[in-house]
Amino acid sequence: MEVSNVLHMNGGFGDNSYASNSIIQQKVISMTKAITEEAVTGVYGNMFLKTICIADLGCSSGPNTFIVVTEVMKAVDKIRRKFGRQSSPEFQIYLNDLPGNDFNSIFRSLPRFREELKEELGSEFGQCFFTGVPGSFYSRLFPTESLHFVHSSYSLMWLSQVPKGVEMNKENIYLASTSPSSVIQAYYEQFQKDFSMFLKCRSEELVSGGRMVLTILGRKGDDPTSKECCYIWELLAMALKQMVYEGLIEQEKLYSFSIPQYTPSPFEVKAEVEKEGSFAINRIEASEINWAACGNKFNLPHSFNDDGYNVAKCMRSVAEPLLIDHFGESIIDKLFHKYGEILSDCMSKEETKFVNVTISMTKKERMDG
Amino acid sequence: MEVSNVLHMNGGFGDNSYASNSIIQQKVISMTKAITEEAVTGVYGNMFLKTICIADLGCSSGPNTFIVVTEVMKAVDKIRRKFGRQSSPEFQIYLNDLPGNDFNSIFRSLPRFREELKEELGSEFGQCFFTGVPGSFYSRLFPTESLHFVHSSYSLMWLSQVPKGVEMNKENIYLASTSPSSVIQAYYEQFQKDFSMFLKCRSEELVSGGRMVLTILGRKGDDPTSKECCYIWELLAMALKQMVYEGLIEQEKLYSFSIPQYTPSPFEVKAEVEKEGSFAINRIEASEINWAACGNKFNLPHSFNDDGYNVAKCMRSVAEPLLIDHFGESIIDKLFHKYGEILSDCMSKEETKFVNVTISMTKKERMDG
Repeated sequence: MEVSNVLHMNGGFGDNSYASNSIIQQKVISMTKAITEEAVTGVYGNMFLKTICIADLGCSSGPNTFIVVTEVMKAVDKIRRKFGRQSSPEFQIYLNDLPGNDFNSIFRSLPRFREELKEELGSEFGQCFFTGVPGSFYSRLFPTESLHFVHSSYSLMWLSQVPKGVEMNKENIYLASTSPSSVIQAYYEQFQKDFSMFLKCRSEELVSGGRMVLTILGRKGDDPTSKECCYIWELLAMALKQMVYEGLIEQEKLYSFSIPQYTPSPFEVKAEVEKEGSFAINRIEASEINWAACGNKFNLPHSFNDDGYNVAKCMRSVAEPLLIDHFGESIIDKLFHKYGEILSDCMSKEETKFVNVTISMTKKERMDG
Repeated sequence: MEVSNVLHMNGGFGDNSYASNSIIQQKVISMTKAITEEAVTGVYGNMFLKTICIADLGCSSGPNTFIVVTEVMKAVDKIRRKFGRQSSPEFQIYLNDLPGNDFNSIFRSLPRFREELKEELGSEFGQCFFTGVPGSFYSRLFPTESLHFVHSSYSLMWLSQVPKGVEMNKENIYLASTSPSSVIQAYYEQFQKDFSMFLKCRSEELVSGGRMVLTILGRKGDDPTSKECCYIWELLAMALKQMVYEGLIEQEKLYSFSIPQYTPSPFEVKAEVEKEGSFAINRIEASEINWAACGNKFNLPHSFNDDGYNVAKCMRSVAEPLLIDHFGESIIDKLFHKYGEILSDCMSKEETKFVNVTISMTKKERMDG
């Protein structure tokens, strides 16, 4: 099983059927708006571009697909006006996700999106050319030096695969305080391998002076097994364990399940960027977002309309394809019901937050000319 | 109704479920291979390109989608070897069709296609980056001066819409010997309008020296109502008329149905290219292909395995979405059964051929520098 294919089988983050994830994603994009604007100024303000080539990596398909590119295009237009430039550049927009993503639904919503864009930005605005790019961002996706701006939000914590050698992690499904150090090491090494490959590919694809803004689900502190990044999965593992006790899931099945994710610290992200060497870091920061931000916009019966169930719904949009692939479809409803209960209980007692690591960087001039 | 959306609702030409069309398309692509190779030599042999950007317009989704780009890439590789160039260029491949095309199935078949390509062309072969571009080729699809080679096969005879003012065409569904001159004029003007818009858009998108090879279903002679281009539709109109007599279709319904197509002569194609002015014509020629080439590869019961039914199946893949949109689904099976009978009868008595017009051209240097 190639994990990433399963992950995005139903669009991964931002899938239409799970509005909760959209809400958190929208909040994150709005939180990082200033950083995106700054980066776009760096690209568009410093080069005279007739065409600005923008890639959104892990675009998914759903309400969020066009949010990022809209923000970037608006930022370009703002700078254009500020600099008093008459004619708008053309926009070449590359929307990337895995081949299993629902590109048809993106493409079919394009005509409506174009109309909205025209209404919002006026007719002076430059022509936009949209393309879909299927493939893993842990491989080359674009020709050499063909991009000016790369964006990715809430995608890069996903590893290309479950790390090798995590069998010792037993009933944990992700890193946890009880994880053996060999398991922690295996997760970290997979992150290093994947993220450095990502950086290498993008450094080949970006022009010198091109910018990249990445937001990754991560953590603030040094400990990769700390609550701030692992608790959400520990609670899901708890629900799974309950189902093992009830005989609904075999213990073996639970022991062999792992989430192919790594939630890095700003320090770890910085270390990989410096090691790879092609990018200068402009800014790196961690921000927090309450679990409860997952959404309270559901029109659910009152008994369900609590934060715990909303977070469970949010996590379901992320983890369901992986869980179905491993445990089968029959346990899913019960599992997420249990998970919702556990989350409600926990969220009523303590404040729980996701941590986002956002990094903005510039591709350095190539030394070989 | 935007006609073109209906046209490609099920992939138009080359849809998976209608293998017959694939066969004729494959034959056409193979017939025009030498022209494509010559054009590719013109692009790649004359410029030193690190990345060669290729667009296939009207790529559809099915067995033919990758045939054209494979031919182009093989041609580039042949020239590279001939010129003794060590490193292969990178390929940026743009696959275009209307937003209703099934891009998901193209993207999901990409990993397998990549493997086949690697097996056939070896590991020396340059990296290929595939993107999907949804939209009508009668509008801008790509940034200014971003393409080196444009290809389109069996797509440009489709007009952007049914011409205005063809009500007088009565029971004819396309041009026919009994069409009034005003109807002939309306069809021709729509072709001129659409094709000149196509040329204008492509002239903006191609670099100077870039090439374009187009194959269009057309005719040899001057008369736009001649049998060589209209007969295939006259026989379908005949089947529809029979169903009017049988009370299965209302006469009004038939009178208001028109095929949004124009089958130009080489002279008419040439005239539009010269009028638009951005392209130098390298070669224009008409070729013929037997209706019977539509395929005899079906595993059908003997009684159905005749040329007439194969051609009916072939035409069904083309016309079915339009017919369903206008007449509803219930008449379709009966209609194509009748059409098959009529085709069989006619093909047993005379030799019947499609005419292809193929044009190869080069984008001229811009006068304004």
